[in-house]
Amino acid sequence: MTDFAPSGYLGVLGGMGPGATADFYLKLISATVASTDQEHVATIIRSVPQIPDRSAAISKKAESPLPALSSGIRELISSGAKAIAIPCNTAHFWYEDLVAISTVPVFHIVDTVRERLETNVRTGPVGLLATAGTIEGKIYQNRLGGQSGYQVLVPEEEDQKKLVSPGIAAVKAGDLIAGADLLSKAARRLQERGARSAIMACTEIPIVLGPKSDVGMPLIDATDALARHCVEWWRTSSSSRVDDLHLSGATDSNS
Amino acid sequence: MTDFAPSGYLGVLGGMGPGATADFYLKLISATVASTDQEHVATIIRSVPQIPDRSAAISKKAESPLPALSSGIRELISSGAKAIAIPCNTAHFWYEDLVAISTVPVFHIVDTVRERLETNVRTGPVGLLATAGTIEGKIYQNRLGGQSGYQVLVPEEEDQKKLVSPGIAAVKAGDLIAGADLLSKAARRLQERGARSAIMACTEIPIVLGPKSDVGMPLIDATDALARHCVEWWRTSSSSRVDDLHLSGATDSNS
Repeated sequence: MTDFAPSGYLGVLGGMGPGATADFYLKLISATVASTDQEHVATIIRSVPQIPDRSAAISKKAESPLPALSSGIRELISSGAKAIAIPCNTAHFWYEDLVAISTVPVFHIVDTVRERLETNVRTGPVGLLATAGTIEGKIYQNRLGGQSGYQVLVPEEEDQKKLVSPGIAAVKAGDLIAGADLLSKAARRLQERGARSAIMACTEIPIVLGPKSDVGMPLIDATDALARHCVEWWRTSSSSRVDDLHLSGATDSNS
Repeated sequence: MTDFAPSGYLGVLGGMGPGATADFYLKLISATVASTDQEHVATIIRSVPQIPDRSAAISKKAESPLPALSSGIRELISSGAKAIAIPCNTAHFWYEDLVAISTVPVFHIVDTVRERLETNVRTGPVGLLATAGTIEGKIYQNRLGGQSGYQVLVPEEEDQKKLVSPGIAAVKAGDLIAGADLLSKAARRLQERGARSAIMACTEIPIVLGPKSDVGMPLIDATDALARHCVEWWRTSSSSRVDDLHLSGATDSNS
């Protein structure tokens, strides 16, 4: 850290995948109320896609990404991060282990989704649209169900296989029409089964199911929820820091 | 650096502004030929928008951003960057000073544009579409004209004021139709004056003037040129590094 940095950065443990990291950063920028560059969140993004595959580790007991994730957390903190966001739903499977080694707050993406639910959705079961890995890892079910008393509805196995997973794959392959069709069918199936809202817990889903889609219930974008939480953290924790940000007249006493 | 990181990162000195950094990162991802996350460029992005305004420093002799830029370079290197990209045309006004303090290569955005020109454009004057700050700082004129023998055509003062600057402002404000109209007029004015190609040296311009626009000459996107250069650096410098990237079975001997 030097005189020319704000007194703390938001650290982003990214690269899982790179596209999800870029999506998060765009949402962070657009969630920020700013009229000049200088009012935006100071961010260190560590986008290292070489971290072992998270879903494979959960479902096939393949190599754990935990050592790589832990290294990432430590590197971000030593670079000056004062809080950390992880724009990858599946990586939250190892959340407790990461909090244990972190000396700064690590925001849990599910907690930020809960904030959006509390603001936007009054009652009823919450549907979950996500990859098989996120569902299998019970990342949302454990944290929303256990602590907060939400009833989390996951797609039936058949719907996950025939609608959600191929819908996500279609978006990844650039076929947005097929993706929108499959994913909105999946959302409507959840609605038929009682969901009053649904969480889009995978980067590809909000690309085709926006707030204006024809699904007749609120849809919460998990990446956007995480971004909004980070902006709020920056706004409230940095009010005392604003004067430092102008950096005027400073000289580099550390060099 | 730990066992869980590739042996070197691409460092991105960003935040000037945050949107230009996000645009660069998206272009880096899309310029990468990869079938898995793990094949993408390992990147540390330092997006610190509190760096003093570059254009104001050039045109109004306001506070220099050089100390803040220098700190950013040093922080990236200490985080493990093995090469540095700066996705901000105007910041290259201080390029020589930054190279002088850097212990790793700093890619010059104009050199990467020259690579695209050499690949795509045979002959003739090159038009420049950019902010007044980039033009006034002679960032392209000095480096393309001086070293490489290109004739760089800048818009006439009247065209810069009535077409380019308001065109960029229209895109920033979200009025893409007006922006496309003004900027394609500016490009055609350069063409009438002899340009055989043009450089889009400002993040907002490629949003409305794509390769398929009705401007009848090649248009080079400077951010995309920088991204492609970085991907090529990663590909050629990291071939010996690929085995390290799997990170399998390693334990964190540094912790």
